[in-house]
Amino acid sequence: MKNTISKHTAGVGRTMIGTIRTDVLAYTAGKDVKLDMCLVDADCIGSAAHVTMLAGLPLKPHLFSARDRDRVIAELARIMRRADRGAFTITLQDQDVHLAVERELTSRLGALGRKIHTGRSRNDQVAVDLRLFAKEQLLAVIEEALALGSALLIQARRNRGVAMVGRTHLQPAMPSSVGLWASAYTEDLLDDIRLLKGVYDLNDQCPLGSAAGYGVPLPLDRRQVSDLLGFRRPIHNVLHAGNSRGKLESGILSALSQVMITLSRLSEDLMLFMMPEFDYFSLSPDMCTGSSIMPQKNNPDVLELVRARTARVMACNQTVMDIIKGLPSGYNRDLQETKEPFMLGMTMTRASLRIMASLVAGLKINREALRRGFTPAVFAADHALSLVARGMPFRDAYHYVKKHLDELDDLDPDRAIALKTHAGATAGLDFAGMARQLAAERASAENEKRRYFKTISRLLRIPYPM
Amino acid sequence: MKNTISKHTAGVGRTMIGTIRTDVLAYTAGKDVKLDMCLVDADCIGSAAHVTMLAGLPLKPHLFSARDRDRVIAELARIMRRADRGAFTITLQDQDVHLAVERELTSRLGALGRKIHTGRSRNDQVAVDLRLFAKEQLLAVIEEALALGSALLIQARRNRGVAMVGRTHLQPAMPSSVGLWASAYTEDLLDDIRLLKGVYDLNDQCPLGSAAGYGVPLPLDRRQVSDLLGFRRPIHNVLHAGNSRGKLESGILSALSQVMITLSRLSEDLMLFMMPEFDYFSLSPDMCTGSSIMPQKNNPDVLELVRARTARVMACNQTVMDIIKGLPSGYNRDLQETKEPFMLGMTMTRASLRIMASLVAGLKINREALRRGFTPAVFAADHALSLVARGMPFRDAYHYVKKHLDELDDLDPDRAIALKTHAGATAGLDFAGMARQLAAERASAENEKRRYFKTISRLLRIPYPM
Amino acid sequence: MKNTISKHTAGVGRTMIGTIRTDVLAYTAGKDVKLDMCLVDADCIGSAAHVTMLAGLPLKPHLFSARDRDRVIAELARIMRRADRGAFTITLQDQDVHLAVERELTSRLGALGRKIHTGRSRNDQVAVDLRLFAKEQLLAVIEEALALGSALLIQARRNRGVAMVGRTHLQPAMPSSVGLWASAYTEDLLDDIRLLKGVYDLNDQCPLGSAAGYGVPLPLDRRQVSDLLGFRRPIHNVLHAGNSRGKLESGILSALSQVMITLSRLSEDLMLFMMPEFDYFSLSPDMCTGSSIMPQKNNPDVLELVRARTARVMACNQTVMDIIKGLPSGYNRDLQETKEPFMLGMTMTRASLRIMASLVAGLKINREALRRGFTPAVFAADHALSLVARGMPFRDAYHYVKKHLDELDDLDPDRAIALKTHAGATAGLDFAGMARQLAAERASAENEKRRYFKTISRLLRIPYPM
Amino acid sequence: MKNTISKHTAGVGRTMIGTIRTDVLAYTAGKDVKLDMCLVDADCIGSAAHVTMLAGLPLKPHLFSARDRDRVIAELARIMRRADRGAFTITLQDQDVHLAVERELTSRLGALGRKIHTGRSRNDQVAVDLRLFAKEQLLAVIEEALALGSALLIQARRNRGVAMVGRTHLQPAMPSSVGLWASAYTEDLLDDIRLLKGVYDLNDQCPLGSAAGYGVPLPLDRRQVSDLLGFRRPIHNVLHAGNSRGKLESGILSALSQVMITLSRLSEDLMLFMMPEFDYFSLSPDMCTGSSIMPQKNNPDVLELVRARTARVMACNQTVMDIIKGLPSGYNRDLQETKEPFMLGMTMTRASLRIMASLVAGLKINREALRRGFTPAVFAADHALSLVARGMPFRDAYHYVKKHLDELDDLDPDRAIALKTHAGATAGLDFAGMARQLAAERASAENEKRRYFKTISRLLRIPYPM
Repeated sequence: MKNTISKHTAGVGRTMIGTIRTDVLAYTAGKDVKLDMCLVDADCIGSAAHVTMLAGLPLKPHLFSARDRDRVIAELARIMRRADRGAFTITLQDQDVHLAVERELTSRLGALGRKIHTGRSRNDQVAVDLRLFAKEQLLAVIEEALALGSALLIQARRNRGVAMVGRTHLQPAMPSSVGLWASAYTEDLLDDIRLLKGVYDLNDQCPLGSAAGYGVPLPLDRRQVSDLLGFRRPIHNVLHAGNSRGKLESGILSALSQVMITLSRLSEDLMLFMMPEFDYFSLSPDMCTGSSIMPQKNNPDVLELVRARTARVMACNQTVMDIIKGLPSGYNRDLQETKEPFMLGMTMTRASLRIMASLVAGLKINREALRRGFTPAVFAADHALSLVARGMPFRDAYHYVKKHLDELDDLDPDRAIALKTHAGATAGLDFAGMARQLAAERASAENEKRRYFKTISRLLRIPYPM
Repeated sequence: MKNTISKHTAGVGRTMIGTIRTDVLAYTAGKDVKLDMCLVDADCIGSAAHVTMLAGLPLKPHLFSARDRDRVIAELARIMRRADRGAFTITLQDQDVHLAVERELTSRLGALGRKIHTGRSRNDQVAVDLRLFAKEQLLAVIEEALALGSALLIQARRNRGVAMVGRTHLQPAMPSSVGLWASAYTEDLLDDIRLLKGVYDLNDQCPLGSAAGYGVPLPLDRRQVSDLLGFRRPIHNVLHAGNSRGKLESGILSALSQVMITLSRLSEDLMLFMMPEFDYFSLSPDMCTGSSIMPQKNNPDVLELVRARTARVMACNQTVMDIIKGLPSGYNRDLQETKEPFMLGMTMTRASLRIMASLVAGLKINREALRRGFTPAVFAADHALSLVARGMPFRDAYHYVKKHLDELDDLDPDRAIALKTHAGATAGLDFAGMARQLAAERASAENEKRRYFKTISRLLRIPYPM
Repeated sequence: MKNTISKHTAGVGRTMIGTIRTDVLAYTAGKDVKLDMCLVDADCIGSAAHVTMLAGLPLKPHLFSARDRDRVIAELARIMRRADRGAFTITLQDQDVHLAVERELTSRLGALGRKIHTGRSRNDQVAVDLRLFAKEQLLAVIEEALALGSALLIQARRNRGVAMVGRTHLQPAMPSSVGLWASAYTEDLLDDIRLLKGVYDLNDQCPLGSAAGYGVPLPLDRRQVSDLLGFRRPIHNVLHAGNSRGKLESGILSALSQVMITLSRLSEDLMLFMMPEFDYFSLSPDMCTGSSIMPQKNNPDVLELVRARTARVMACNQTVMDIIKGLPSGYNRDLQETKEPFMLGMTMTRASLRIMASLVAGLKINREALRRGFTPAVFAADHALSLVARGMPFRDAYHYVKKHLDELDDLDPDRAIALKTHAGATAGLDFAGMARQLAAERASAENEKRRYFKTISRLLRIPYPM
Repeated sequence: MKNTISKHTAGVGRTMIGTIRTDVLAYTAGKDVKLDMCLVDADCIGSAAHVTMLAGLPLKPHLFSARDRDRVIAELARIMRRADRGAFTITLQDQDVHLAVERELTSRLGALGRKIHTGRSRNDQVAVDLRLFAKEQLLAVIEEALALGSALLIQARRNRGVAMVGRTHLQPAMPSSVGLWASAYTEDLLDDIRLLKGVYDLNDQCPLGSAAGYGVPLPLDRRQVSDLLGFRRPIHNVLHAGNSRGKLESGILSALSQVMITLSRLSEDLMLFMMPEFDYFSLSPDMCTGSSIMPQKNNPDVLELVRARTARVMACNQTVMDIIKGLPSGYNRDLQETKEPFMLGMTMTRASLRIMASLVAGLKINREALRRGFTPAVFAADHALSLVARGMPFRDAYHYVKKHLDELDDLDPDRAIALKTHAGATAGLDFAGMARQLAAERASAENEKRRYFKTISRLLRIPYPM
């Protein structure tokens, strides 16, 4: 086994802003350099807004003329295109995307590049980069959640009349239906989307102009930058702009954890009820994987991994909270370590939603196996309630049925689920209403995305996304 | 040392719904019985709504006549009053508040008591109890957060011109002010309140009528129950009503964790800057505690405990998520264990907000000590930016100043903070705007509380809260 | 609903060491006062050792004469007896058990009581109290773990020949046996005990004599105190003695979490395989609980609660680690908040082990149901390996069997498990060896306990435990 | 911004053991393929032992002749060499290192490659790979911890007489010394090493021969395989061999978390006391990093990152525990997700120990600044204890000093620390004893490593590590 940590010589490297020992650089910047590759677009977009605002400042001499501004923006767009085709890299000496972009601008535009950092710090750059990243990712998560919600609703409508044993404590409880089971997850996802929209709003505030968290003696127009980037509004207090880092990520990861817990429960149900002893559901065979030793195996690995990744996304949230708990105000380098769990939580949630939507769409419902699950005991509560309908107090009916459990008639599952007519029960499900909610959420997410892309395209003067 | 777990004989106890071995009862119901004492009011309120709805059902014979309904409600109110004065207890045999109240109703009203459980299960009772509990607690948390936000804003306005060294990495960074520092926390709390309101909305849905998660063959009017209890709307899918348990608690605890992280950072700042080497802030002496061995000690225990309880509230959230991760759908007894961390998280957050509001109000700001913190290096960025104003590209100015650090003039801190005039910086803070936001939030929380109390008073026919 | 946090007037209370505002006392000491009741014995024992050592110090004048020492020890024993019968209380003014005991000694013995705190601080008192508490609890946890391991081994031996479908990914995999399944948990617990013994050793170091973490200008005999209390040795560095707090608790809670994860897996297996669709195992009916609405229910609540409490014990560990992460050296009040999760983790683990031992002992193994689980596919790997035995390369045999899955003969489960004769497989289990290991561990734990009780009895001059 | 999750076409890929849809492969195998590159050596070593054992089995026909065995081992060594120079890759179609190695063997050796998987499963392969990986990593962690412990001890000895204000609650408490402070961490690390050795022992058991967790109908010699690989002994029960996965990783990560918490506290101390207001310690300038906006900054980023990575390692542990909590017995794919946090926790801890050893070695102790920290109040407890020495009961002395705090004489810090002569206090530190402990631990770790490398070299017939 090789050392996964390479041995660093104690050489020194010259960075944009000073010299650092190589082993220190490796320990401090290490993985960040790689993670920052996901932020190249956001960083260029942020710089385009910053330079546009600087060019408008009433300073003598002007920081950037209109022509300078246009040259910088064109160069930023070029960097984005290069990054897109893998031709832009961030080196360890750069430390991060911010200095890499500044280096590139400086090498191409000279003094214009050396001016770009006027009135800002890397702290507010990374803050805005992460918020732009989060904005796109959250919109995508919402869309994937809606797609899964729809796939579930389709299964629910299609199988609304398919009886299924409802369980509590894993034990057979009362008659239920596939329609009730599947649409419960649709409503669950709609709850999750509510939380996602809440953190989307929290995210939708522009930190730029905070500099190192203490502002600058320049008349920055923070509202303009915020508008140029399509944010709802700027964060006001510049120290709060910095302090919000980590907290925002944790807020978002909490909402993502809720989504994952929904998926985890769905996975657990499917894993249980696709065991041959139940055989209620079958996954599409191309969704399963085999064993290296047992030729017969057809394993639901996707579901197991969704369950495990739920733990991972939860832990991403925990990581971020543990990192920031107890930190004083003002930027601390600890925050860098929130980046990886934040990005990981986002991408795991998106990928899990997407694969589950595909899995649910291909799910086979085995009506006969589902019916075989019914035994007379499943109808015990229904029996008790029919005695109630004839005037017996419920607790008496309960004890009467409990005493005569062995004598219960076997009822018809189809009839049992048809009798639950109140709102939200097996025969009272408002599928049309759920479909309308999904459609409304989808329209709202798409509008927001369109509006955002239009704003950024206007800023960059090229279509975005490229 | 005595066993903290008493030795249980393997006797058996008769409960409302069967017999259970004593050691099993102790393991299963144990602490829940004590925690449920916090839910007596909510449980009685939920039952009042349930019986009101049952009495209106178009069944022959009627489940409850109008007179029966009134007797049950009066008896529920009586239980609330008894609980209030410590005269109502839940025994281990009862297992929980639900069966304790049913027992009490039955012992006083006979058959009416035995009817009360018609069309519901303990699962949806505890779900509604916790949502009613959460509603009141969340409103209180929001009010305490607003009170702290106001105390901070008062300090900020009063000390807007008091210069303070702004730090990053704990090292002196740039000129800041007490006004910037304190009002950053006000804005932070306003962000937190946004998340609290999000989970308040999520909570504001009525689960009643889900029974064991599979509905009942009775024409329950779930919308009516929801209205009677002042919920915004019922949860639709009855299985989702049960599945949402645990997830809701975790959503709320996430928002509470955000509040606590705000308090943790504030505490950390105060602990650091009240060390005698800084002496920026002094706590009121009656906020400090002493040492058993060192006569001179005046320790900021409150702040340390706020920091530690931040970890505890975070762990409450983690507990709930760990419990529900991987559970299948339908009620599982695991959920019981979410109750204690949920309640603990709520009460710790409220208590921490309250003590911090008092502590902040009594904080002494030591203007001279704050000024002593300034050294020429703190003005380095300001120097660089003044070169920028004279036309030097920022990166060149940065390197120039870096090279001449030892020759920097000492600037005037007051002037330095007066020069940062852009929005949100030391001289650009909109205190009036923040005050308006706090007032608007307070009005909204008070309205909501008033509306809710009025609805419950109407249901119980007595003023609530008693 | 009543406020769970009572409204505190801003009165002031006079404590042993100063005055504190009532609301501050409530926030700071609050629950600690109650938790400290579990530490009365340990605190008195620690004080008995401390006074014995002080009495032996070569100081002029002597701090304590031999007679003084005996009077103090007798009074400490009296406090222990009073606490035992509920007649000793810690008030909020006391703040904690240490000052409560000092107050009591002072009220009974005057100057002797005012001398007892010589050369120590509450910090090292609580450190020693918790280590004595942990010592007894850990020995008890080990004993309960051994009892459960034995119960499992008895089931394993009794059912060594009962075939059971072995699963991976929950899907049927290969032939297994109840003997293999049950004894896997015995070995798991033996691994856990190894970790428990590791943290027992870590705990077995005496912190006394560290005072506030910086020693005292008195010639304390720290080795003697350590010996008097039965510790293996004193912690050396006095600052480390304080710094180890929190870390030790987290180390112990990690080991307890391992135990709980073993129980969680066992619970999960049992819950699954007692579903009527499997019916492999039946719990004793008096281990189950019912439903308030469904008369037929017989739910495995104990198992669900063990699974949930696994999450809680894990979260206790997480709480402690989150609290101490980022703390500077020297005592910080944050540490107080580690007490509750520490005690909770201990008692939950003990209680869970105990109830599981009882549950496993009463487990009914349904041989016929277990046999019904076998289908031809379960033997696929065995078929492939029989082709290997005839010379076919394994991967070819694997693909051959995979292609002919539908034509596999149904093998005899009993024969299949009899053929796995290598060490640790169904027919190669060394039950006698496992029994010997359990016995050796039990003897070692009992010796340690006996030795410890004898040491403490000698110190107190009365039999301990009382 | 580009999608970080590429869009997968629903193509299908042919793997060694079947066909899987491309998007499913990407979701299931994804990152694992990359992580498995760290396991190539371990996997080849495990296979060398397996084939050696198979070649010795008394089967007719022989599975492997002595010559076959040697050819396989030589080929495995070749794969290790190729991996070492980056010439061996694992493809997504391979799914993992196990099938990649089998594919390579098969392509080079034909039937011999197709035989290698006889009597094992990937489950026990990955189990043994991870245990071999953990063995080497843990030995390295122990060595790095000892190096840091030594660096601290050197600072302690060198500065044993340098007085330093000891603190509790961050407030000045009592006189201390740099010797006490630094050597506290040495003892802390020695405690940590105790736990590391405990989990090293737990890890030092060989899982091979468990196959899919249910053994095989072949007379595998599990003891021989264990010996060939240098394990202390085989795990006995084959189901336990599989069940231990995840738990073992969590046990190890718990011990690593303890190490990180030690580093976190050390970092916190250093960050605080290198603030210019204290200036007790100075980091070597090449250990610091600058700011992009503030030319004067010299930030302790390494220390902040150590603190943050403490949270990350803790979260790695939490991740693993959350993943396995609630899993049933037998292999579940969830376990794959424990691999990344396990490896990450290992490498982060090693890297953090290493950089801290370098940082501590270069630490500058500013004697004058340390002395400036002393104020009369720091000596209050010493004053009280001097009254005790003259016969006043401690509590009276405490109150007397408390009343006369303003009149305290300023004592000499050097004398104050010279007076604390009891074991473990400022003038009673046993540096030689600590040095002996470090040396003994180092010798023991080196012996173990030498023994292990020798065993593996014998197995591979080439020097290992290469």
